[in-house]
Amino acid sequence: MNNQKRPIGIFDSGIGGLTVAKAVKEALPHEDIIYFGDTARVPYGIKSEETVRMYAMEITQFLLDKGVKMILIACNTVSASAKEDVVRLAGEVPVLDVISSGVQTIKEELRVSEPTVGVIGTLATVRSEAYKKALESTYSQIQVVQEACPLLVPLAEEGWIDHAVARLTLEHYLQAFQDQSLDAIILGCTHYPLFKPLISELLSSKETLIIDSAVSIARTAKDYLEHQDGCNNQGGSFSCYVSDRPQRFQELAERFLGHELSHIEIVRDWT
Amino acid sequence: MNNQKRPIGIFDSGIGGLTVAKAVKEALPHEDIIYFGDTARVPYGIKSEETVRMYAMEITQFLLDKGVKMILIACNTVSASAKEDVVRLAGEVPVLDVISSGVQTIKEELRVSEPTVGVIGTLATVRSEAYKKALESTYSQIQVVQEACPLLVPLAEEGWIDHAVARLTLEHYLQAFQDQSLDAIILGCTHYPLFKPLISELLSSKETLIIDSAVSIARTAKDYLEHQDGCNNQGGSFSCYVSDRPQRFQELAERFLGHELSHIEIVRDWT
Repeated sequence: MNNQKRPIGIFDSGIGGLTVAKAVKEALPHEDIIYFGDTARVPYGIKSEETVRMYAMEITQFLLDKGVKMILIACNTVSASAKEDVVRLAGEVPVLDVISSGVQTIKEELRVSEPTVGVIGTLATVRSEAYKKALESTYSQIQVVQEACPLLVPLAEEGWIDHAVARLTLEHYLQAFQDQSLDAIILGCTHYPLFKPLISELLSSKETLIIDSAVSIARTAKDYLEHQDGCNNQGGSFSCYVSDRPQRFQELAERFLGHELSHIEIVRDWT
Repeated sequence: MNNQKRPIGIFDSGIGGLTVAKAVKEALPHEDIIYFGDTARVPYGIKSEETVRMYAMEITQFLLDKGVKMILIACNTVSASAKEDVVRLAGEVPVLDVISSGVQTIKEELRVSEPTVGVIGTLATVRSEAYKKALESTYSQIQVVQEACPLLVPLAEEGWIDHAVARLTLEHYLQAFQDQSLDAIILGCTHYPLFKPLISELLSSKETLIIDSAVSIARTAKDYLEHQDGCNNQGGSFSCYVSDRPQRFQELAERFLGHELSHIEIVRDWT
């Protein structure tokens, strides 16, 4: 198969990574996309690194077997805990992840030499300090303030995006930054872009750059493919594979994507 | 091994079932208990029946291999979706579940012939209508009002038991019962007893009987063993097996049990 025509593989612990798939579709409308959501074992953010690595390897192999030309890790927890393992298994197939892409966007867009950056994410992402380490290796002087926000994923999946409970919960979490003048805040979980309007409203400074890593990774993927002359100009399909399909999957996926899913397949014996 | 001295097996999707283990330890302090929490695949409440059944069977086999004399399904989702499969696999080993036990308690304690009963639980438990069906087969005239409360488990795991967000969330969920005069409300998830004081405060009627299924199943287990002359008078150990052990497990387990865990073992290749 022609290398350009091979699909792009995207995976996440569940449906959160569909924000990445959506951004990739917007940036690269003629690429074929294969999305894998591990809905049988979601969420990853509360699990150990060892377990997350094991799951990530299984999904990477699944995508490689589908002949993907590039793998996008759309899950912050996997990006933080298992990127090296995915890269090793993927061999010559390039692997991008939301953390590196988010940090890259800050570097490109932030016109401040010694910035203060906030990071919100799942417990696992925050504990891994992956954003903190990546930012500190990029800037000689930087202050990084992290806050784990474990309730935001369930709130997003409940659909309480602009509910009073979401507002009160975010007010609580964003208190962590009340003494800071943030130059940027990273939405370090693929569910969080759904709360972007509320976060923007609640941040004390209106100047804070809000980094949506779904948009960042899509841009990095586009740059990479264009640079390698690897773009597909004739595709545009979207195939979705999940390890389990609860009744609400369709509804939630449509909330994330903003349109109906055309192809969903359940994969049970994929390991 | 003497039948009386064999341990009691208790399992749940995660740590929620420790409320059951605690109630069993209080009711039967000289029993040896083996607890299995499927922390690598928690939560079950958002997953399909087929997947939940598969997980339940794997754990049942694990407990049978440990020589348990009785299995307590401490997970409402498994009780609703997979009890028949567990019973079939367990053969002569008796299986109790939180749903049957909760309904049994209502039957014994509620002095109303045509009651109105509220049920709160996970999405899967509510969708299964397992409590509703069990109640309707017990009473010739009954009104059952169900409400799924998916945010309560993450709130409990975040430790926001009496936080303003928990109050606002419960106020929202309990609105489902505002036009009812509830004779009883079933806390249809093993995490929910942690919110019992708040639920009690927020319910419009102070006469509503609050059914904690952890207490119910412990009482049913005690009755059964006493009736069969199957009690152990010399044990009292508590062994905890989990499929994954995130850093917060110990902390959360201690919040549930009210004391330190003495024996925890991670089981990765148990299927």
